[in-house]
Amino acid sequence: MNKWIYYFSPAGSEGNATMHDILGGKGAGLAEMSNLNLPIPPGFTITTDLCEYYYKNDRNLPTSFNTELMLAIKKLENITGKIFGDHSNPLLLSVRSGAKASMPGMMDTILNLGINDKVCTALTQATGNKYFTLDSYRRFLQMYCSIVLSISAELFEEAFELHKIQANIYKDTDITIEILEKIVTSFKQIIIKHCGNLPVDPYEQLNLSIKAVLDSWMSERAISYRRINNIPQDWGTAINIQSMVFGNMGDTSATGVVFTRSPSTGESKIFGEFLINAQGEDVVAGIRTPNPIIEEGINAHKSMQALMPKTFQQLQEICQKLELHYKDMQDIEFTVENGKLYILQTRNAKRTIAASIKVAVSMTDEGIISKEEAVMRIVPESLNQLLHTAIDYNKPLNAIATGLPASPGAATGVVVFSPYDAEKMSHHHKVILVRHDTSPEDINGMHVSDGILTARGGMTSHAAVVARGMGKPCVCGATNIIIDAKNQTFKAGDIIVSYGDIITIDGGTGKIFLGEAPLMRPSIAPEFETILNWADEISHLKVRANAETILDSTAALKFGATGIGLCRTEHMFFDQNKIPLVREMIVAPDKERRMHAINKLLPLQIDDFKALFKVIHGKPINIRLLDPPLHEFLPTSASDIQALSTGLNLPLSIIEQRLHTMEEINPMLGHRGCRLGISYPEIYQMQVRAILTAAYELKNKENIETIIELMIPLISDVEELKKVKSSIHEIVTELEIQYAYKFNLLLGTMIELPRAALQAGAIAKEIDYFSFGTNDLTQTTYGISRDDVASFFPDYLEQKIFAFDPFVRIDEESVGELLEIAIKRGRQTKPDLKLGVCGEHAGNPVSIEFFHKIGLDYISCSPYRIPIARVAAAQAKIKALS
Amino acid sequence: MNKWIYYFSPAGSEGNATMHDILGGKGAGLAEMSNLNLPIPPGFTITTDLCEYYYKNDRNLPTSFNTELMLAIKKLENITGKIFGDHSNPLLLSVRSGAKASMPGMMDTILNLGINDKVCTALTQATGNKYFTLDSYRRFLQMYCSIVLSISAELFEEAFELHKIQANIYKDTDITIEILEKIVTSFKQIIIKHCGNLPVDPYEQLNLSIKAVLDSWMSERAISYRRINNIPQDWGTAINIQSMVFGNMGDTSATGVVFTRSPSTGESKIFGEFLINAQGEDVVAGIRTPNPIIEEGINAHKSMQALMPKTFQQLQEICQKLELHYKDMQDIEFTVENGKLYILQTRNAKRTIAASIKVAVSMTDEGIISKEEAVMRIVPESLNQLLHTAIDYNKPLNAIATGLPASPGAATGVVVFSPYDAEKMSHHHKVILVRHDTSPEDINGMHVSDGILTARGGMTSHAAVVARGMGKPCVCGATNIIIDAKNQTFKAGDIIVSYGDIITIDGGTGKIFLGEAPLMRPSIAPEFETILNWADEISHLKVRANAETILDSTAALKFGATGIGLCRTEHMFFDQNKIPLVREMIVAPDKERRMHAINKLLPLQIDDFKALFKVIHGKPINIRLLDPPLHEFLPTSASDIQALSTGLNLPLSIIEQRLHTMEEINPMLGHRGCRLGISYPEIYQMQVRAILTAAYELKNKENIETIIELMIPLISDVEELKKVKSSIHEIVTELEIQYAYKFNLLLGTMIELPRAALQAGAIAKEIDYFSFGTNDLTQTTYGISRDDVASFFPDYLEQKIFAFDPFVRIDEESVGELLEIAIKRGRQTKPDLKLGVCGEHAGNPVSIEFFHKIGLDYISCSPYRIPIARVAAAQAKIKALS
Repeated sequence: MNKWIYYFSPAGSEGNATMHDILGGKGAGLAEMSNLNLPIPPGFTITTDLCEYYYKNDRNLPTSFNTELMLAIKKLENITGKIFGDHSNPLLLSVRSGAKASMPGMMDTILNLGINDKVCTALTQATGNKYFTLDSYRRFLQMYCSIVLSISAELFEEAFELHKIQANIYKDTDITIEILEKIVTSFKQIIIKHCGNLPVDPYEQLNLSIKAVLDSWMSERAISYRRINNIPQDWGTAINIQSMVFGNMGDTSATGVVFTRSPSTGESKIFGEFLINAQGEDVVAGIRTPNPIIEEGINAHKSMQALMPKTFQQLQEICQKLELHYKDMQDIEFTVENGKLYILQTRNAKRTIAASIKVAVSMTDEGIISKEEAVMRIVPESLNQLLHTAIDYNKPLNAIATGLPASPGAATGVVVFSPYDAEKMSHHHKVILVRHDTSPEDINGMHVSDGILTARGGMTSHAAVVARGMGKPCVCGATNIIIDAKNQTFKAGDIIVSYGDIITIDGGTGKIFLGEAPLMRPSIAPEFETILNWADEISHLKVRANAETILDSTAALKFGATGIGLCRTEHMFFDQNKIPLVREMIVAPDKERRMHAINKLLPLQIDDFKALFKVIHGKPINIRLLDPPLHEFLPTSASDIQALSTGLNLPLSIIEQRLHTMEEINPMLGHRGCRLGISYPEIYQMQVRAILTAAYELKNKENIETIIELMIPLISDVEELKKVKSSIHEIVTELEIQYAYKFNLLLGTMIELPRAALQAGAIAKEIDYFSFGTNDLTQTTYGISRDDVASFFPDYLEQKIFAFDPFVRIDEESVGELLEIAIKRGRQTKPDLKLGVCGEHAGNPVSIEFFHKIGLDYISCSPYRIPIARVAAAQAKIKALS
Repeated sequence: MNKWIYYFSPAGSEGNATMHDILGGKGAGLAEMSNLNLPIPPGFTITTDLCEYYYKNDRNLPTSFNTELMLAIKKLENITGKIFGDHSNPLLLSVRSGAKASMPGMMDTILNLGINDKVCTALTQATGNKYFTLDSYRRFLQMYCSIVLSISAELFEEAFELHKIQANIYKDTDITIEILEKIVTSFKQIIIKHCGNLPVDPYEQLNLSIKAVLDSWMSERAISYRRINNIPQDWGTAINIQSMVFGNMGDTSATGVVFTRSPSTGESKIFGEFLINAQGEDVVAGIRTPNPIIEEGINAHKSMQALMPKTFQQLQEICQKLELHYKDMQDIEFTVENGKLYILQTRNAKRTIAASIKVAVSMTDEGIISKEEAVMRIVPESLNQLLHTAIDYNKPLNAIATGLPASPGAATGVVVFSPYDAEKMSHHHKVILVRHDTSPEDINGMHVSDGILTARGGMTSHAAVVARGMGKPCVCGATNIIIDAKNQTFKAGDIIVSYGDIITIDGGTGKIFLGEAPLMRPSIAPEFETILNWADEISHLKVRANAETILDSTAALKFGATGIGLCRTEHMFFDQNKIPLVREMIVAPDKERRMHAINKLLPLQIDDFKALFKVIHGKPINIRLLDPPLHEFLPTSASDIQALSTGLNLPLSIIEQRLHTMEEINPMLGHRGCRLGISYPEIYQMQVRAILTAAYELKNKENIETIIELMIPLISDVEELKKVKSSIHEIVTELEIQYAYKFNLLLGTMIELPRAALQAGAIAKEIDYFSFGTNDLTQTTYGISRDDVASFFPDYLEQKIFAFDPFVRIDEESVGELLEIAIKRGRQTKPDLKLGVCGEHAGNPVSIEFFHKIGLDYISCSPYRIPIARVAAAQAKIKALS
């Protein structure tokens, strides 16, 4: 037979902190506190099993429960020396829900239960405090009747306010006994009008309250809260029933909430608020303004420390005890009844990420927790708040449109519709670049912009990827804005936003606002650096950055990158001084003219690499040879096309013909990656020559030795790899002889196509390392173009067809399996194969856990995600060991 | 120690037919014939081991070989009673190459070896036939000196012709002894001029000839022949040295070639040609016109049967003996020396596909081979010749351009550049539709055209796939033609072809010709049907057709399809009466207006399916719900867009906006397949309603029960499948109740994405069958868009980076492995899962062998490939069993 009820009292309890499953969070906490001999109001917890039984039995309760309940009340009466429903020395109860996971405000609580007219009279006699008695009675009537009897709470609130107005008073503390009596009378009238009679029988009150709490588990708001927060629907709630303690017995009574440290900053000093002569709900409701616990600030004289110094002392000791016991900062509810302190609840405190870091580091320094525990306390994703500007949503704001939150941070600026205008305006203004979608051609415009907004494309579209790489706020796929590029306006609903108008975008929420919104700048504490260093000590996975510009590489190193994990050489091609040469190279009608352009590009590329190698100063750099389809570099506007024709001295018709033949229906699956290296070996050879020459010159002049990793993209077959490899080796050999210098050089390949993963055994033989390109691998494995997801992907995520966005978090069951296959086969033929990942997933904590598990050596992500990745990498290792 | 030499003579041999590897094809044949006691000139075979030694040792021969060679010559002298190089009774030899695989004309042969002035005199004395002696001598000088001494053969030919002209004769048979003497003298002068002296020493002649034959193995033409025909370069050649027999000894001597049956038609009657008083090379060279072997036709009186009846009789018996022995039609070379018949070579005869079928069926009927052997004799791919019109390349033709051979058959017609013009012109002309590339919008235009030519796209582009489905000739990706659609011309080199000009295309070779080219119509013999039926008796794999039109389905049934394996419903949407409604459905701004269009489409779709079900008459039909991205249905020309705006009474700007938002960057990976069924469940529901209603009405009115297989495309996750399935089931349940009828219905899904293959276990639980869409699976596994391969794929195939085109033949190592994984996981959760394939690979014999091996139940291909698939399916089973 089930045991439905577990007792607790300051003298000890039947449960403890580990019994979350059946006692719920609050119940387990009460049990634990009673075991610690803390002053808690005695009571008992009804287990979650009862809730389960209730829903499995058509909302009926077992008879055995009723027997247990009667015994429990009896026991509580013995401990307190009061009798439930008695007319001389009555016991009042609190009934509170408490599920395994915290569901703040989602479920019901009933206080002061067991009261009625006669009990009220008895209570007044016993306490000599009629004000208190009436106050408790009116609280009970409102709470019980709105929750259990479903009478609208507003009716009570209106009546309450009406009496205050009639008495011409504004503050609750000015209410007199007379007014309270009128209020109680009015409440009774409301109840009789709606239910016919008053809730008189205390046992009926108790039984109906228990059922009401159980029913609230399946209330609509509770169900949707659980769905949003991934809490299983079948967990059920426990119910805690305790002897009431009263903060509303007068000036020696109070109620409050205290944090053992500051939840905003993490400072090691208790922080909290309290109200004299009040019950807990008053603190939450905000009707009265609470006073501080600590004696400081302008309200120091109203503080608990000042007014109730002895109780304050006791509270402070309990805070310390609980924090040490739980080894974490606590959020504690308490009540003082006639000078006596009671603890009602303790739980790990919610806190800002800044506080989270500060607390973790302090507690480690204080010897309370280990470095590993400190690192585990950080929610990696939340570090974003410290790294990016955010909108202050405490001020009221109305979004004019919403897109996908593609790159975190907020930015305000003037609207421009072209990269050209972005550059022009950026000299004097902050700029938001608004585009249908972006292409590599827009890179410079994106660089000078403060934020990017696109109408098309998903979380992994070009705009999103580049913006994240640059650490710039970006909202993508805002399908509800309509861009009219010709007239330089966009429409959001009825609002028309024109060139030069100011907007604010929030890349963390996807919201778009007209005008300036209040921004909060990021602030970084020294403890942040401490946590990151601890993380590095723990991690197996090294964290590198995807970067190719001086700006990004510098940022990457600042954030602690151990090297560059993906240097996308094509980004260098878009510089104003290079793009005409690149175009000349691409449209060249024959190899001779192509070589002409290539030879002009070579010195510029050497300079690019030299500058980059200097920044990274001996850290390893994984350089991907040219990857995107060549048509991405070609001009699209008539004037640019004309300019190309003039510049190359080739007829416009020939240029147009060439542009036309290079168009592709599915460029993602087209002529790109190593396929370019096969068609135009001279392009890859030029790149290799530039890289090696730069490395040699830097070694020669500044004695900086660069560790070069040369990576061939989009391999699907080992024969492709061999072909490209041999064409690369020609140059390596030539230069090693020419310079009489042996390069520190590894050769690798992207594994970003399903076939490459399956053929990894053969491929591994030819190279030193794999870098998993999980973006493209996800695209091909799912058959989903990340540029085209806006049309159907929102439906998929909303309808939970996909439990998560596989472009954000790696799908372990498919893409992940392909990685595991590739690793197994690759290491079979090459046991010391080095393994990394450079897809967007490398910045996603859940994915990082997977990457650790399958044995990668490093991950490479956007510079601005490096701190997140470092923490996540350490957590992955800790989880794997535990 | 190696044995370098194997003897053979009519008295028996050291080798036999199984020893191809070391004796080569010719050598093994001679050994086998000697074991059969057939009259062969005695001799010996130098093994392929010698060739291997030769190339491994810097073109030197082992000394042990020389000893063996001397012994072999001695032995031959003993058998023939003649002495090599003797001046009274000289032995002459033939030296012939003979590799394991036939390499016709690629390697060297030297006849009449061992002759010189003194031997010549001796030979004249021995035979009393000075003409014969001189003829043999001049043959030797020309052959030996051109091959061994590298003197241009043309010099000899010119001298030979000059003497004929001087003597004023035209026919070789009119040459007198005097002229022959002059010719020999001239030949000697040529040789002395180029080499200083004549080849006198017979043993030197022999040694140099052996080396020349060995050297010819690595001649450029031999190397490239082997590369083209996939013959390993390290096999090496054997050399056959035989006592010469002379067909040039006068009117009782002759030489000829005979086939045991007709190599053109397969008729069971020997067929061949011979020349009296000639050596073998004369037959091949075509200087004299040979006469028939059999006494029939206008040259009956010149036939061997008429002129040499006894020898003919003997030859006929040998033919029969060899055919029975080898169980296949033979191609036999023979020489008659002074009335005595010698067999020089026998081998399996090359033949037309028509003959191949006829011979296989006859031999089975005659009890020589089994049905299985008969089926194995057919090269499936060659059946194309019987099914399609071909160009007669015996007439000289110059191609103006070449593309990819995308769909076999040849067609002549007038050039048009739009589907509209195709329809217009097709009323009075045969039409060739010329396009950059085609889209589903062009379907009607393609239907009325006789051939299709595109400048872009590969072997599996839309044009290619549709053309093959329709059995129409198609040349794709002719990148060397430049289309000027505006001016209605295309340019091929300097030639401009205009609207209305006539061209001929050959979809079997990819060639394009200006004007009409001579065509050969297909002819189908009853034996073809017999072979196909035998194939069906043997096969495990059933063969279905990809078809959705009445025309295609009728063709499919004619070719023996057991059902429809892929009915692409979208093809029905392009009909003139439906496309406006489809467009209305797509651009509808809300569900209500979409339903309005859908409700108008429904009755038309019901009619489509009713007509189709009637044709297939109870055979199963696998219907794929709407698959392509919706924008494929939308208009692209300004006038069509205007028409849509007018028809829908929606402003042009709204229509344009809608068209714009529906554009996709990578449509192949975009909003298509079941993703449409998730976004617009009403479209799939309409299709299901139409299919079921059609099936019910046909059952009700004509008592034809249709076996419906409903297939959901592009599944990547089981949750998608469940969602679509439940929306389909709504309609099924509704109609089953309404009609009180239980449909014969299976539900299936395409496995065409890597993720679907990996998730097959979960997916299989939900459905009855898998249909592998290997086209799309190949695209995603390789990351290659079949629409965009023209840019780099030719390089890949040419440079042998890909050993074969994975869109033509399935890549067993990647796509194949995914199929195997899917089958294993699918059958684990659903043991009776039905499996089929509907990609292009289903018509490819090598792939069919794989599909059989991995246990599929059926394959579904284009109607015109069904006969090929039926034979290949049977061969797959036979190979698997052997």
